[in-house]
Amino acid sequence: MKKIYFTPGPSELYFTVEDHIKTALKKGVPSISHRSSQFKSIYSETVEGIRQLLNLPENYYIGFTSSANEVWERILQNLVVNKSTHLVNGAFSNKFYEFATLMGKDATKIEADYGQCIDPKTVSLDPDTELLAITHNETSSGANQTLDDIKSLREMYPDQLLALDVVSSAPSYPIDYSMVDTAYFSVQKCFGLPAGLGVWIYNDRCLEKNSQIQKTNSTGTYHRLSHLHEMGLKNQNPETPNVLGIYLLGEVVKDMLRKGQETIWRETQYKSSLLYHNLENHSLFTPFVKKKEWRSNTTLVFECKNPSEVIEKLSEKNMIIGKGYGKYADSQIRIANFPTHSKEQVELLVDILLSLN
Amino acid sequence: MKKIYFTPGPSELYFTVEDHIKTALKKGVPSISHRSSQFKSIYSETVEGIRQLLNLPENYYIGFTSSANEVWERILQNLVVNKSTHLVNGAFSNKFYEFATLMGKDATKIEADYGQCIDPKTVSLDPDTELLAITHNETSSGANQTLDDIKSLREMYPDQLLALDVVSSAPSYPIDYSMVDTAYFSVQKCFGLPAGLGVWIYNDRCLEKNSQIQKTNSTGTYHRLSHLHEMGLKNQNPETPNVLGIYLLGEVVKDMLRKGQETIWRETQYKSSLLYHNLENHSLFTPFVKKKEWRSNTTLVFECKNPSEVIEKLSEKNMIIGKGYGKYADSQIRIANFPTHSKEQVELLVDILLSLN
Repeated sequence: MKKIYFTPGPSELYFTVEDHIKTALKKGVPSISHRSSQFKSIYSETVEGIRQLLNLPENYYIGFTSSANEVWERILQNLVVNKSTHLVNGAFSNKFYEFATLMGKDATKIEADYGQCIDPKTVSLDPDTELLAITHNETSSGANQTLDDIKSLREMYPDQLLALDVVSSAPSYPIDYSMVDTAYFSVQKCFGLPAGLGVWIYNDRCLEKNSQIQKTNSTGTYHRLSHLHEMGLKNQNPETPNVLGIYLLGEVVKDMLRKGQETIWRETQYKSSLLYHNLENHSLFTPFVKKKEWRSNTTLVFECKNPSEVIEKLSEKNMIIGKGYGKYADSQIRIANFPTHSKEQVELLVDILLSLN
Repeated sequence: MKKIYFTPGPSELYFTVEDHIKTALKKGVPSISHRSSQFKSIYSETVEGIRQLLNLPENYYIGFTSSANEVWERILQNLVVNKSTHLVNGAFSNKFYEFATLMGKDATKIEADYGQCIDPKTVSLDPDTELLAITHNETSSGANQTLDDIKSLREMYPDQLLALDVVSSAPSYPIDYSMVDTAYFSVQKCFGLPAGLGVWIYNDRCLEKNSQIQKTNSTGTYHRLSHLHEMGLKNQNPETPNVLGIYLLGEVVKDMLRKGQETIWRETQYKSSLLYHNLENHSLFTPFVKKKEWRSNTTLVFECKNPSEVIEKLSEKNMIIGKGYGKYADSQIRIANFPTHSKEQVELLVDILLSLN
């Protein structure tokens, strides 16, 4: 029996990916020139598909990078001269903050405990803050900042640029991207693709700010926003990009559009409820995030006494789940609930988890 | 009949790649964690394989980036405070120079005409030059700086860091990497892999210089050399890398080691001679690089009257070659001669080219 990966990324490939890889090889996709009309069609179809799947407004654009890590660096290089503020409630939001300090920015963090989210009422930005970084879904702790919170922050801070980490939440949540100015994800989470591609969403306010910054500062080289954008309008990347990755993303996005955004949102919710409901009542497991409205539907974290044993027992049944992040490896498990995970697979996983004691 | 790509990158996949992709999918390689022991083994095998294939000295290390473009940026960020000098004889060597100016460095270029190489005797560096950038094989013009020239430059400048672009020459030439301090390539050229992975080779002098620079300057974030190196020693990347790409590179390198470096060098030379010899005597084609010792064995550039017609006629026979770079699109063709291209395929290509008139 083939293994099923419920790890929070890299994770199980979207169930159509293998077939798309075979087609790509038949079509010679990895061999075509990144300046050819064939590539430009692939690029444009992928971008248009993402726009549609995420309901991006007209004045929002898409650039391809190699990872979400790269987007953190590019945002700081291209959209911040001095001051960024970061809502930090776990390892990944903290890493973005650390990137800012490594780049010599005057970075501030507003923190919540691990497993919690930041109450917008406690957020008070210095007026010279240029960018506020928010993480929608903290992949490390499984805490999910509510979309209402993000809306409140937008209303509180209409002048700052708002950056939203949707690494492990797009396209599984109905996010209104007009609440923020830039957002980003990598493809190995909810999109179920091989790692090595990051997607950077930015609006015309970002382009404006970037154009101001460029007058006085270096904003990088091949992936400086203005150049990435200019090449993107020509359906190309500045460098030879991950052509196969862009093709596969486009094909998976088409599959997801055929399924329908609302179906994806509804199924995510359903499978998540199934997991929380069943495990909450099981003596071995306790949801780590206490406040129900903060519990992630895509990366579910449970406290348990002996994670290695649980992981091992599931592995014997070819079900691969994740351990807790960093220092929580010995006290937590993490389960991904991505679009590729079928209801039947989640039911099977729940059955096995319930049989443990 | 399947197309054969003789384009100078992306190009024909190495002939074993399709099978390795199938095996990777069976093994679940795209789904495994980038912190797992399974990934660490893949990483370590790939690195060890490259070391062996390229005969890297002990004190040389390997880091994985997303492209050679990224390596240009990282070299400038991590190894140069102020001053770099660039030997420029085509589009790609010039782009590295442009990157340096975009990053606010005091960059100098020493130029040769398109299709020529730089005579080491004409190179005179300011004593405060920190890094000298050399391009072994200019993919745009097909001019190849001789290995003896590079050796001379090393002897002339023992104190500067020497960076060597081997994007379209490794592993097809017997390069002695101890002549330089850092070198880099992307995998979609001679290695015949899907684009989206860059390989950065650096020695301990680079690490030393980087450690000095870090005391006063920002050297980036996730791919700052010190961090890339530190994670590399643990057989990991800082971010989730192109796991599938690293796996495939490792497998192709094993195949190449089985074939043997010397066989690859010899076959490259043989196929290259076959192409130059036959086309030189053909009325339609003239080798663009006049001086024989500068003619590339891996990216062969010919002047011809009507490149589109030649390209079109070859395409009808499922042979895909490249057009001239940039403004030479209407007066040149480019033919890749990479390890995946068999003698038989090259003979077939020559036969078709000879039949044109």
